[in-house]
Amino acid sequence: MTCNSEIHILVSLDEKYLLPLEVMLTSLFQNNPGEQFVIHLVHSRIPAHRLEALGQGVAGAGHHLVPLVVDAELFGSAPTQDRFPQEMYYRLLAADILPAELDRVLYLDPDILVINPVRPLWDMDLQGRIYAAAAHTGKTEFANEVNRLRLGTDHNYYNSGVLLISLDTARQQVRAESIFAYIHDHEAQLLLPDQDILNGLYGSQVLAVEDAVWNYDARNYSSYLLRSGGDINENWILENTSILHFCGREKPWLSGYRYRFRVLYRHYMQLSRRMFAGAKST
Amino acid sequence: MTCNSEIHILVSLDEKYLLPLEVMLTSLFQNNPGEQFVIHLVHSRIPAHRLEALGQGVAGAGHHLVPLVVDAELFGSAPTQDRFPQEMYYRLLAADILPAELDRVLYLDPDILVINPVRPLWDMDLQGRIYAAAAHTGKTEFANEVNRLRLGTDHNYYNSGVLLISLDTARQQVRAESIFAYIHDHEAQLLLPDQDILNGLYGSQVLAVEDAVWNYDARNYSSYLLRSGGDINENWILENTSILHFCGREKPWLSGYRYRFRVLYRHYMQLSRRMFAGAKST
Repeated sequence: MTCNSEIHILVSLDEKYLLPLEVMLTSLFQNNPGEQFVIHLVHSRIPAHRLEALGQGVAGAGHHLVPLVVDAELFGSAPTQDRFPQEMYYRLLAADILPAELDRVLYLDPDILVINPVRPLWDMDLQGRIYAAAAHTGKTEFANEVNRLRLGTDHNYYNSGVLLISLDTARQQVRAESIFAYIHDHEAQLLLPDQDILNGLYGSQVLAVEDAVWNYDARNYSSYLLRSGGDINENWILENTSILHFCGREKPWLSGYRYRFRVLYRHYMQLSRRMFAGAKST
Repeated sequence: MTCNSEIHILVSLDEKYLLPLEVMLTSLFQNNPGEQFVIHLVHSRIPAHRLEALGQGVAGAGHHLVPLVVDAELFGSAPTQDRFPQEMYYRLLAADILPAELDRVLYLDPDILVINPVRPLWDMDLQGRIYAAAAHTGKTEFANEVNRLRLGTDHNYYNSGVLLISLDTARQQVRAESIFAYIHDHEAQLLLPDQDILNGLYGSQVLAVEDAVWNYDARNYSSYLLRSGGDINENWILENTSILHFCGREKPWLSGYRYRFRVLYRHYMQLSRRMFAGAKST
């Protein structure tokens, strides 16, 4: 066993997403044997007893949870709704929120299964960029084009659900005021708020990574398969994809989910119930 | 963590089944946290270097492999073929082959995924019977009836792929000579040789357990669903079934397998490649 450095994960969510978070963490731990994870959970109102139960589960698996409270009023009048809680913005301020000694963090959405090691992404050379992220090629080029026009950018439309962040670079280049101003100026046009800001303000500072490996859109099996000439099939995904992302409104932890990989997700829900058994009594 | 007694597993196979064996063991270990397993591998011709690699993987996961060699000529002229190697008979002689101090063992076929704890089966009171096993209710009652008539028995036709064995009771009641004689007398009629012998000779000594939990036939999703009035659906299985059995000719590790749970099996193949990484170089 080599002695690897700790991998720092950033998550940010409200209480409603604790269940998928547990599933995501279970899959992360199971599929990264030999790694030590520090999970930075940035939130504004998750009750203490739930954090405690979560922390016990993480510690039981040999990792470490660090909760961090952010003032719920931070984003004031920024657009939020049930599907887009305020917590989605926190990833953009990671450089301000996380400890100064931390130079890199991997942000992960909770609606994710990690099914292969994340070490290659964690160790990636960012070549001076702030972020590494993937654009969803599973969608049509047309959707990419629409988003480019909509935001007036000349790069791919990156998905903000998996974001490797150079905190050192972000501390020099990302300004909270710019983000607040961008929200203020574009409020009416923001469809996927945090993602639009990432692309609109910092899209040129993103190093593109392959979405089929690092941010596979679980809704788009057929598109990946077709666009790869049949290469990116189920076996390929299970052997090569590290991060399965269950984007969109339909979620595999809710009933009625009909997409591929549902069986896998449900199995990890069961593993998660075991790992976080203490959290269930709450 | 409670201090549980070790669980003794019996497997018996030839070299061709080492890959599925590794997948089965990976799933067994992953889904039984806190348990200590001793894996008794009874075989007649698996090369030493492959056993060594297997043993290293098992030890790396914190468990123990005990290989046991049986004379390849033991069953002489008993019917064997590619699909039914001689090793399938060894489970029937477990009481003679395994150490005298062992009083109980759980036999598992290699074409299995264990997705929930096996402890409740292991701790089961056998009520004086030699075996606990399940009949596949997923099949029609008709198939059961045909097998009853074919073997002249008046009980369910039990599947021999998951077999809890009371070695103490077997040492008193199972005679190797009876088995050899039964093979000799019925050679022409034996369709599923070891299973037919189990049912023909010792069927009345089997305690029936629920197949949906302990020996779910992965080919028969629709039958289970229909016969249970919709209760035994995918979610139920992932939460309640401990042993998924990929019976029959089509196997999920081969290409072209089209049944449900293929994604899950393929994911465990990947986990298994990691756990038995040492075995891959051979």
